[in-house]
This record gives sequence, C-alpha cells and structure tokens, in this order.
Amino acid sequence: MTTIGIALLGVGTIGSAVWRTIVEERESLAQRTGFRLEVRWGLARHRERVVGVGLPAQAATTTIEPILEDPSVDVVVEVMGGEEPAATYIKDALEAGKHVVTANKEAVSKHLAELVATARRARRALLFEASVGAGIPLMVSLRQLLTVNRIERIRGIVNGTTNFILTAMAEEGIPYQEALREAQRLGYAEPDPTADVEGHDAAYKLSILASLAASRHIRPEAVVRRGITTITPDQILDARARGGAIKLIAHAEGSDGDWRLRVEPVFVPGSDLLAHVRRNLNAIELTGDRVGTIVLYGPGAGPTPTASAIVADVIDAVRFGDALLPSVAAAP
Amino acid sequence: MTTIGIALLGVGTIGSAVWRTIVEERESLAQRTGFRLEVRWGLARHRERVVGVGLPAQAATTTIEPILEDPSVDVVVEVMGGEEPAATYIKDALEAGKHVVTANKEAVSKHLAELVATARRARRALLFEASVGAGIPLMVSLRQLLTVNRIERIRGIVNGTTNFILTAMAEEGIPYQEALREAQRLGYAEPDPTADVEGHDAAYKLSILASLAASRHIRPEAVVRRGITTITPDQILDARARGGAIKLIAHAEGSDGDWRLRVEPVFVPGSDLLAHVRRNLNAIELTGDRVGTIVLYGPGAGPTPTASAIVADVIDAVRFGDALLPSVAAAP
Repeated sequence: MTTIGIALLGVGTIGSAVWRTIVEERESLAQRTGFRLEVRWGLARHRERVVGVGLPAQAATTTIEPILEDPSVDVVVEVMGGEEPAATYIKDALEAGKHVVTANKEAVSKHLAELVATARRARRALLFEASVGAGIPLMVSLRQLLTVNRIERIRGIVNGTTNFILTAMAEEGIPYQEALREAQRLGYAEPDPTADVEGHDAAYKLSILASLAASRHIRPEAVVRRGITTITPDQILDARARGGAIKLIAHAEGSDGDWRLRVEPVFVPGSDLLAHVRRNLNAIELTGDRVGTIVLYGPGAGPTPTASAIVADVIDAVRFGDALLPSVAAAP
Repeated sequence: MTTIGIALLGVGTIGSAVWRTIVEERESLAQRTGFRLEVRWGLARHRERVVGVGLPAQAATTTIEPILEDPSVDVVVEVMGGEEPAATYIKDALEAGKHVVTANKEAVSKHLAELVATARRARRALLFEASVGAGIPLMVSLRQLLTVNRIERIRGIVNGTTNFILTAMAEEGIPYQEALREAQRLGYAEPDPTADVEGHDAAYKLSILASLAASRHIRPEAVVRRGITTITPDQILDARARGGAIKLIAHAEGSDGDWRLRVEPVFVPGSDLLAHVRRNLNAIELTGDRVGTIVLYGPGAGPTPTASAIVADVIDAVRFGDALLPSVAAAP
C-alpha cells in the first residue's frame, strides 16, 4: 500500500468536500486503487477555518512554504479559486516537485500554457478535470479523442447558473430578475451573479477546452461574450413556441492557428439535444474529424461531484505523472 | 520516436478502417504522441483479403502463429468479431507478451474475467473501448468515475440499429418490417438482423459495462432480454402522443453482489434525454453515488469512429500497459 500525501490549498465548499470524500472513501479507495490518501496540510487565510473543516491543528497553515518544504506532500490540491495567489502557488508547488490537481477555471484559463510548461520542466502532473463540468469526465474524454482526432468544434452549456435561470424563465414563465432570485435562494447563483450571468465563467471554461483542442493557449479575453441579463420573457416564450429554447451556448470552432470562441444566448431548436438540457445541468458537444459528435451531459457543479473528479485526478497524478500532460503552446 | 508494431486479426470493415486510420494519421500521430504505428501482419481466412486491404503480401497470414512468434509485434488488434477463435487468439496473444486491443463485444462479454486475469498474469494491456459505443469515450469515462464512485445504475440506448428502426417507425409512421428494410438498405442493419433486433448485441454491451461497474463478471446470459420485433405502430404513436418514445433500453442496477440486467423496449417520457436520441445514435447514462448521473452520447457504430477508438487504445496500451486493467472477479 502506497500513501499519497496531500495538501489542500483552500478549505471552502470544494476543499471541505475533498476532505470529506477522502475521509469517507479512504478504505474503499485503498482497496480499489492500492493508494492510501492522507491530507497533511490545509491552507487558508485563518487557521481556524482549517480546524473547523476537521483537520488537526498541526495541519493548518496560512502560508504555502511549509507545504513546499514537506517531502511527505506528493500532491497539492488547489481549490482556493481566483487567479492569484492560486496561479503562483500552482507554479511554486510544481517547481517544488509536487503534482498539482486544481479545479480553478480562472487560473487555468489565464495561465494554461505557462502552467503546463512548468509541469513539463518539473516532470510533474497537472490535472484539472474539475475545472470544467465538475464530475463530468470531460478531460479524460477530450484527451482520448485528441489522440486520433482533430477536434473541429466544441459547443455546449457549461454554466449551470444561467441554464437554471433560463429554464425557470421558460418553464415557470417568470422574468429574469425573479428567476435569478430563485437561483440565489436555492444556492445555484452567487449573491453577486456577474461572473455567471455575464458569461465570464463560461468563457473561462470554453478557453480551457478550446486550448486543449487547438494545442495552443487561447486566453479567455479572446472569447466574444454576451450574457443573459437582457433576455426577455417574450424571447423565451417565442423560442418555446418554435419548439426550442434560448440557451447560453459556449461555442468554439476552428483549425490549426485559427479558432473563434464565443459565449452568447442563442436559439436552439428542439431537434438539438442541447435544447433539452434543463435546470443547472451541463452538456458539452465535442466534434472530431473521425469520431463525429460526442455529447457529455451531467451536473456541472456541486461540491460532491467536483470532489469526486478531484480525488480521481489525485490518484491519476501519482499513477501517471507527467504522461497525461497536454500539448499547449503559448498564446501568440 | 518509438515504433509500435501492430498485428490486425481481421481485415473486414473495422480492420480495414483501422489500417486506413493508421496510414492516414501516421505523421500526425507521430507528432502528437511520439509513436510511429506500423502494421506488421494482417490475419484473415484468405491471404487475398489482406492484400486487398492494402497490406503487402508478406504481411498476410491465415494463422496466428507467425504473429505470436514475431518479437516486433507489440499490440494485437482483434477485430474479427464472434466468440471463437477470437477469445482464444486474445488469450494466446497476451500469453505471448502482446498487448491486446479489441472491439469484440461478444468475446469480451463472454470471457471478460478470464481475459483480464490472463492480461494481469502476463502484465499486458487489454483495452476494449470500441466494444461498446464505438468512438464514444465510455471506457475511459467509466474508469475515471469508478476511481471514486460506486456505479449504482447503467441505463441507455446501446444499439443503433434498433434505435434507427424505432425512430423511423415514430417519425415516418411506418410499421416494423418497413423500417427494418429501410435500415437494411442504408447499411444500419445486417441481412440477418437477429443479433440487433432481439437484443443480443445490447445484452453483450450491457454485460461488459455492468461487469466493470460491479467489479465482477456478469455474463450476457444473465441479461433478461426482449427485442423490438413485436412493437406495433399503435404503441409507437401512443408513446408519441404522450410526449415520449418507445426505446430499446439496456438497464443494469445493483450493488455489491446483486445486479439485475435487462434489455427491453420501454416507454421513455419526453423529460428524459434518452427520448430525444434519434436514428442510429447511442446514449449511455452512468449513475455514481458521488457524481450523480452522467450521460455520454454519440455515434455508437461505424468503421471510422470505431477505428478512432481502437487506435487511441493501441497508444494507451503501450503507454500505460497493465496499469489500466479493470478489477473483474470471475462470475460465480
């Protein structure tokens, strides 16, 4: 039995779900994979937060240094979110010889080429399955398809909050503001919903997927982006009357050096599977030159599915190391 | 650059598509993966068949022995179909130290535990992504989900022929026999359609998926099976009037030692994504205790998507060897 030492950067909703998953599944993970997972450190702004999650007091740190210096840490799990200090911590961890698993779409989408290059130099794993589509096995699927296919198009619903709002508007006939309040009450939208409803979150995710497909870093700033705040009940009802739906669609299409990315609300006809994706679910279409169009569908958010993907990445990081690193050239 | 020597067992529709994929993608595969693929042998009942596909005469064989004895063969690709001699050849190849990639649902579903045990003893890869859902990345997804999840349910449309027939009956309002003839004319159904329309093909595929989920070999004979031949236009139209569809659903549910598998035509309501899977497409739901329900959708047949999955498996076989072997106990 091999032990995997883990440091958690961040002990919020996702970090504590990762901790819980590791504790609850320790025996079955050991039995199924031959690895015993041990959380050695929890990093947060305040030590009390770490202890509050259930970690012992001596595992709490407010700085990254003790983690980088601890040879018993094999994998750093970054779940703090936001661009900085997350991106710097990821690089530091890789350079200190740790594998890194992250769910951070913003840091990954803004620094992908640089992070992959750092991982390659350090010969360490960098896995980010949970950064797009939570527990939907998107990265493993994309990696498998990319072995033989050129991916020519990516298209999908990658933001659960806006899909919940658009579904509520269509099915309950309520206006945007009311649907937003319902989403907030149920915890599907943040108190400040800007990142979701203006399409920033979807743009980060699309940038990551398209960069992997293009083998070249396409920054989120390159995504043409329009949100859902001005969608009216009339537009929604009109779409319904035509047998389809208005959906916030992330769309990337291209080949070689020329890719166009956009996130915008568009009419999707009823003959299209994406029109039938309801509530806070996600669905992503990947079109390859040989395989045709594949769709992956499922819950695109939530602490438990996200933690499931993160823990699977931790084990793959140790098993396969840098063999799973994608090829991503720097943005021009 | 490392060369991967390949032997093709079978040069029919799938075998020749694998050959074409390797030839057409040779340079881009080398660039993307660092491996150069070389087909050393083609096995068929008649040498002319092998030469007809485009392989050189000295690569043609009617017996397995020269392949087993050739140290330059790293991966045996079994695409002959049928239970025997395929299952025996797979075992022979593993025991001769070759990795094996197969698309053969019948041989895999009937001999899974034995084949995995042989691969484990020989420390060789045994990959069969293309045996279910052709190019849909089902096996990589299931493997990723199974790291942390117990899969509690598998449910889906895994046979394109019957889904094509049921779609034609619903959308064109034609009876079963006429829809079957249309499927045959378009090449979606065999001249003898029994394996598809009686649910044998779906039972093989369900047996493979459920065996992986249960970590225990569940033979195809354990599947309760009912085909679509007695479905009437009235039943189809009634389902349509209720906003749903009749679909041939493969369903497996269980935990630990107790799994129940069935393949049967059932009513699927319009709120269910599976009701919207048209023509010869496939869709498979995987429900895990942590991740929730994930659906994978795409073309579940066709030589080009199937060959795409096979060639990706060839590269993974060499990259990861027996590290990807599933845990499958023998059937009781």
